[in-house]
This record gives sequence, structure tokens and C-alpha cells, in this order.
Amino acid sequence: MRVIQRAIQVESRKRIDILDVTEFVREALREISAGDGIVNLFLPHTTAAITLNEAEPGLLDDIENLLDRLAPELSDYNHNRIDNNAHAHLRNVLVGSSVTIPVSGGNLLLGTWQRILLLEGDGPRTRTIVLTYIGL
Amino acid sequence: MRVIQRAIQVESRKRIDILDVTEFVREALREISAGDGIVNLFLPHTTAAITLNEAEPGLLDDIENLLDRLAPELSDYNHNRIDNNAHAHLRNVLVGSSVTIPVSGGNLLLGTWQRILLLEGDGPRTRTIVLTYIGL
Amino acid sequence: MRVIQRAIQVESRKRIDILDVTEFVREALREISAGDGIVNLFLPHTTAAITLNEAEPGLLDDIENLLDRLAPELSDYNHNRIDNNAHAHLRNVLVGSSVTIPVSGGNLLLGTWQRILLLEGDGPRTRTIVLTYIGL
Repeated sequence: MRVIQRAIQVESRKRIDILDVTEFVREALREISAGDGIVNLFLPHTTAAITLNEAEPGLLDDIENLLDRLAPELSDYNHNRIDNNAHAHLRNVLVGSSVTIPVSGGNLLLGTWQRILLLEGDGPRTRTIVLTYIGL
Repeated sequence: MRVIQRAIQVESRKRIDILDVTEFVREALREISAGDGIVNLFLPHTTAAITLNEAEPGLLDDIENLLDRLAPELSDYNHNRIDNNAHAHLRNVLVGSSVTIPVSGGNLLLGTWQRILLLEGDGPRTRTIVLTYIGL
Repeated sequence: MRVIQRAIQVESRKRIDILDVTEFVREALREISAGDGIVNLFLPHTTAAITLNEAEPGLLDDIENLLDRLAPELSDYNHNRIDNNAHAHLRNVLVGSSVTIPVSGGNLLLGTWQRILLLEGDGPRTRTIVLTYIGL
């Protein structure tokens, strides 16, 4: 059994953005010669989130619209007295800070349409994904 | 330490459905003689979700009503230009694609009222739950 | 490789409450001499939730307001025919019952602003966090 940790850096391009980071994760799993286990992808951030879904451009717009409806950018938030990004914190609470994906023979056991999506809520910024592989 | 992976197949019965899959997971843990560790239950799907909660029939209706309010089936989604199931993708983003549950002596450490619920958003379909046990 | 499980008890103070439980988790990791791995923090409860975010008081109010908007305490829920806490179950479905955090050299790999927050939805109560450490 092995525990291997790596940091993956990605760059968001605008304030609200969605990045497909699947290939960065696949590359890291190849570099560490992963076998059978799980990989946890963890964002050490409170204003970005990570999820799995289809990377169809229309759907990515729908995801942004959904989050903008549930936690609008412009609203009278208490946190915005000291900062200007409460919407991004709230979207992180709804979507989550990590995903855990099974790995078999070094390959992510993702479904046909599943991609790993980083949801930026307060960019553009450099974001870190902490990858932890636990397995054989 | 062991890593054991199994696929569990379940059948949803209608377009929007909630399946209690707890006993399938317990059976799989018995078959693999699980000890102390964690079990990750992962859906390789983008239009179904998995969560833990009470399987009281009124509450299951409330969960469906909540998701229908937050991501209605009938709405003007961009993704629906090429498909007809954006609501199901969006509910997956809100609820999540996997749960990780502690296991002790082969038993799920669930609370009294906790059941493992698969939330179907675009059925009826055969759905796969990828079970990964990591532990002693 | 080791698997170590511990139960952490915390007390919520009112019906809707947010508890910062980060230091309890750090203390447990010290006690078990954690090294490199992951820690899963699991609530065996259906009416409380766990997430990661900043513990700024204004933001904690914003989180409570968001959840009260998405799943209001006073609403005509089916589950409330037999109980009076459907709102808390629904918030758990949206936020989630567990978080998994990477650990390196015994330390949580949290970002600068990340704290571990237990969201009480039907307190005051004693709540249990099941900690499972898997690692070296």
C-alpha cells in the first residue's frame, strides 16, 4: 500500500470560470505509476469548488447560471463588509471542496461523460489541487 | 491493507426516483469480508447522484420537491438544445457523485436513520455503483 | 499502513448553529501520531452537515441565510407530518455528511482560510464526528 501526494497548479481565466482538469489528474496518476486504489482531489480554497460532470459547453453555462441563481454574485451578504466574494464561499459550501474517485490499473474509473471540473468563483487566480493517491 | 473494488448494479424505475441501496452495500461488504476501513461508493454517472439520509417516504418526496425547486425539470437550459436532461446534471452537481463511509468490523458506521440513497434524475436506467473498500 | 478510527463528540448550542471543529480534529491527529494519508470526517446524523469554509462571523450568517433560503425552516414539508425537522434533512442533502482531507506529516493540508464546520440543523444536541485516518 502506498500514499502519494502531489500538488497540481491550474490557472483560472476570469472571475467565474469552469476548468476541466481531468487530463492533469490522469498525467499525475501516470507519473506516480498508480495501480488500484482511490484518488482524493482536494482544493485548499474556500472560493472555488470541485465536482464531476459533463464538460458540454451549454451545460457549463447552465451550471454557472444555477449557482448564480442560488448564490448570486450581487447580493447583500454580511461577509461582503470585509471582502467582496461571499457568493464564491457559498457556492463552495453547496458544491464541495473535494472529490474521491476510484482508480483501477492506474486509470480513473470515470463514466463516459464524467470530467473533473474546477469551479472558480473569485478568479482569475492560480489554484492548487492536492492529489492524494492511496492504493497498491 | 487491502483495496477491493466491486460494481453494484441497480435499476431505477422512473424518470425521477430514489433508491435505497444500503442493503446491496452491506451484502458486498460481507462478501469481501471487510474489516476496519472506509468504503467509497462512486457513481460513474452525470445524471444521478448519491447521498445519505433517512428513507422516510414523506422525506423522499421532500427531497424530490427540493431538487425540483432548485433545478426544475422544465426550464430553458442550454444543454437541452442537444439533450433533455440538464436538470439531472445540475442536481448531481448539488448533491454529489460519491459518498465515503467508515467501516468497522465489516459494518457500515451509519447512524440510526442513515440510509444510502441513489437519486435518479433521468431514468429509468441501469445504474452502476463502484464500491471501493480500503482497509484491513 | 494504518487505519485508525476515533469518535469526536461536540455540543451544538441552538437549533441552527455552526461549530468550528478544526482544533478537535487536529488534537485527534496528534493523539494518533498521524503521518501521511487522508482523514475522513463522517457525521452519523441526518440533520446536521459538515463542510469546509472560512469561519468569519459574517460569512457564517450568510451560510445560515443561504440554507434558510434554499430549505426554509417553516415550509409545508411531508416529513413534518411525523417530525418537525425536514429543513435539516434537506440541508444535509445539499451540504453533505462527510469531508475527506489530506494529511501530511500529521498535519491537515487545509488552505489558509479553511476551517472544518459542522452545520447543526436541529439542535441543540450532542453530535458525533467519526474520524477515520488511513495512512502511514
